[in-house]
Amino acid sequence: MIINPEPLTRETFKPFGDVLETAGIKPGLINQGHTQKFSGLANITLANEGRAQISIYRSRAIELPFRILMMERHPFGSQAFFPLHDRPFPVVVVSADNIPGPDTIRVFLSNGRQGVNIHPGVWHHYQLTLDKTSDYLVIDRGGPGDNCDEYQLEQEVILNL
Amino acid sequence: MIINPEPLTRETFKPFGDVLETAGIKPGLINQGHTQKFSGLANITLANEGRAQISIYRSRAIELPFRILMMERHPFGSQAFFPLHDRPFPVVVVSADNIPGPDTIRVFLSNGRQGVNIHPGVWHHYQLTLDKTSDYLVIDRGGPGDNCDEYQLEQEVILNL
Repeated sequence: MIINPEPLTRETFKPFGDVLETAGIKPGLINQGHTQKFSGLANITLANEGRAQISIYRSRAIELPFRILMMERHPFGSQAFFPLHDRPFPVVVVSADNIPGPDTIRVFLSNGRQGVNIHPGVWHHYQLTLDKTSDYLVIDRGGPGDNCDEYQLEQEVILNL
Repeated sequence: MIINPEPLTRETFKPFGDVLETAGIKPGLINQGHTQKFSGLANITLANEGRAQISIYRSRAIELPFRILMMERHPFGSQAFFPLHDRPFPVVVVSADNIPGPDTIRVFLSNGRQGVNIHPGVWHHYQLTLDKTSDYLVIDRGGPGDNCDEYQLEQEVILNL
């Protein structure tokens, strides 16, 4: 099966997590009017004595078409990815109550100025990037316990644009 | 008094917080070798029943020379700023055990690919940006209690490049 991305919007991505973007949000004014604050974009979820941590992931570009073979999920914490570039990139997810497969996989295309915060338990592919090696700021949970489940797809799904 | 920025490095910024950058960090390889992970850049500090939250701040550029008149600090949580642009910007800080003034203010210049995580209690100016309106990803604490102290400088300090 071949799957093409759909646009990333706050509404369509709701079952999977938060979209981190300024579009459609009314900012508050702080710092004596010098700063527009777009707040409440996401809360970091931390279970099982977790702490929030900041990392940078440097991802090598995939080649299209790309075979989706495996998904992962983090039961104890959310995981946010924000692009440190402004090029589109795909986000591959399956809602927490489904088994990853051709019928359940959704692919969203960030416009490059949108990040995502994937909720605990939501299946996702490891972060994919297009065209060239790219950096992402990652905010997620560190702490005790096994916080990564993996699932091998029984039937492959092909991502294309 | 006129103060000029010094370069931002992990060593010199240590009394004030963390520098969020890949330079000088040996990454781990994850995702079957597709991703270099630069981890442990910063932990988010959360006191007084806080939660970690993600916001975007859109800052209007200052004009130089700039008069530093006021500083603030957040007793219950760290505050991280990561530039969503790649232009230099100043970070104005005073260590937690000092009173803001000409003798204690330090100004660091990020190279535009470096973010900062300002530790709880560290005095800092609200985030300044140069040249044009710029966005920053902000990861800090939300939660109960008064988490912002302000201090009006008795003697102004002039920032210039």
